[in-house]
Amino acid sequence: MSLHINPLSTLISVNHVHAGRQSKSKLRISSILTKQDQNPISPPFDFNRYTLEKADSVNRALAAAVEMKEPLKIHESMRYSLLAGGKRVRPMLFRTPSLCIAACELFGGDEPTALPAACAVEMIHTMSLMHDDLPCMDNDALRRGKPTNHRVFGEETAVLAGDALLSFAFEHVALATRGASPENVVRVLGELAKAIGAEGLVAGQVVDICSEGMAEVGLEHLEFIHHHKTAALLEGSVVLGAILGGGDEEEVGKLRKFAKCIGLLFQVVDDILDLTKSSAELGKTAGKDLVADKTTYPKLLGIEKSRELAEELNREAQEQLSQFHPHKAAPLIALANYIAYRDN
Amino acid sequence: MSLHINPLSTLISVNHVHAGRQSKSKLRISSILTKQDQNPISPPFDFNRYTLEKADSVNRALAAAVEMKEPLKIHESMRYSLLAGGKRVRPMLFRTPSLCIAACELFGGDEPTALPAACAVEMIHTMSLMHDDLPCMDNDALRRGKPTNHRVFGEETAVLAGDALLSFAFEHVALATRGASPENVVRVLGELAKAIGAEGLVAGQVVDICSEGMAEVGLEHLEFIHHHKTAALLEGSVVLGAILGGGDEEEVGKLRKFAKCIGLLFQVVDDILDLTKSSAELGKTAGKDLVADKTTYPKLLGIEKSRELAEELNREAQEQLSQFHPHKAAPLIALANYIAYRDN
Repeated sequence: MSLHINPLSTLISVNHVHAGRQSKSKLRISSILTKQDQNPISPPFDFNRYTLEKADSVNRALAAAVEMKEPLKIHESMRYSLLAGGKRVRPMLFRTPSLCIAACELFGGDEPTALPAACAVEMIHTMSLMHDDLPCMDNDALRRGKPTNHRVFGEETAVLAGDALLSFAFEHVALATRGASPENVVRVLGELAKAIGAEGLVAGQVVDICSEGMAEVGLEHLEFIHHHKTAALLEGSVVLGAILGGGDEEEVGKLRKFAKCIGLLFQVVDDILDLTKSSAELGKTAGKDLVADKTTYPKLLGIEKSRELAEELNREAQEQLSQFHPHKAAPLIALANYIAYRDN
Repeated sequence: MSLHINPLSTLISVNHVHAGRQSKSKLRISSILTKQDQNPISPPFDFNRYTLEKADSVNRALAAAVEMKEPLKIHESMRYSLLAGGKRVRPMLFRTPSLCIAACELFGGDEPTALPAACAVEMIHTMSLMHDDLPCMDNDALRRGKPTNHRVFGEETAVLAGDALLSFAFEHVALATRGASPENVVRVLGELAKAIGAEGLVAGQVVDICSEGMAEVGLEHLEFIHHHKTAALLEGSVVLGAILGGGDEEEVGKLRKFAKCIGLLFQVVDDILDLTKSSAELGKTAGKDLVADKTTYPKLLGIEKSRELAEELNREAQEQLSQFHPHKAAPLIALANYIAYRDN
């Protein structure tokens, strides 16, 4: 009889390191979904150390990849938004690229093989935030506690630095990836592009913009936006890692489905938290969605059905990883859990 | 004794097809540079037919690659700027991607092998125009005789459609290229990215923006802007084709140098034309650079030294192709000539 570990409902110890404050807390996976404690087993895996290590690797690789050089203004602008800044790395900023490394390692690949792709994912993520913050888009003044890129460098540089980061992501994967076959590098570049474009991240943003002020937003529409805006890059990150690690087609398919579920789960949980937690618990204004009359899962389905959906997604995600040894899958699961179930 | 053809100073018959009007003219290569007629030999190569065919291929491939599908708004916006529009293809719109096909064919590669890369070059070119036209950049209302993308679809969609085209360029090359080794596809993707980013097209735009209002702009500075803004993508297009056609490192290097020369030549000739031709001859306002106090080659070097520079670039470009049979090199040379020596 083998030990049954429910990978998406284990207890892990997490250091929450957010914007200058640090609080140690036991994060109970699934606790916001159900009242029962399922399998309260602490895995031997040191999540904290793992994420710190990966974040440090990604941060150092990013700083080395995008050096200060001529033309200074564009590189300064790229680095301003790309690098966590300061001496202390904030590991959770790099959760999506870390998934890429974890997925690669699941198949026995090593960190250096996945690092250029992980950096590319962070470049794309940063670029999408830079363009999102522009006056013609969300017109945001602050991002991660700092003035947004266009506020510091001007709109035209923010547009161009975003474009440069986008193309540099591809350049970096094409030129810096070692330890993978050219076939797999081509696949990775194709997957990365798909995660961004008119069928990925950008599609989500466009449909989101078009939905503003729409009288009725259905569940399908909502899932389209979330899947593309939030989940596409997360899915891309996992799939990139799986390909680079040498996963076969079926295995890559399972990891893709795992990532899809986690991506949606993230949003469902976010919507539930906004409705059920106080502002103090969240560390940000609670109930914002209600005030903004935003279409959310609880609004569409009710709170109970939203919880059921989250559990269903949770279950589906778990199924995809059932063939892997729990110890090997632990980093991927822990990272995915942290993304889906952060308590604020 | 072999027939000596001076490839950059031959006579070719060109149909100028511009924005709705069509005028047949004999275009004398080099005639604006020197008064002598060097080797007035009409090559057997039918430039007109070749460019029409290539433009038609690129146009059809682009229309097929970027289909109308959900989300409609983003794909409509992409297609609006990307496709020449209407039934009549304007072949000279596609001169840069056509160079990619011509370079591939020089090494015995076929058109279908180069077509995805050629399309990618046009996607990048279009994307850079879309972002360039934005209110925060040049704030242009018209492009190719039509309202600019942001005027039709809104600024936020123009930003996102540009981002989508940029990533789709990479996706298309990664997924649609046939007849080339994965190693070469990776090289092509790396080269394409380099032509765009902070060391390519975007670098030129940033330095151009930073130079506005600068008291002194030196020759080196001017060449940096031109090389990056105009020549980088042209160079990329030629190099992509050469790699896909199977050129070895030395051959690719020669074509790269050829393209660099032609790219700069384009700008030098443009500056000379602005100063020496009348508005009627140019079909646009002459002397604009002088009025705008723009830094130009004639301003920096004087008209005679500018002509000498153009001849020097011309000679250097020719040297690079001297090893190829004139008949095989004819399309590439004719296209490059058309780019460098159009008379308006």
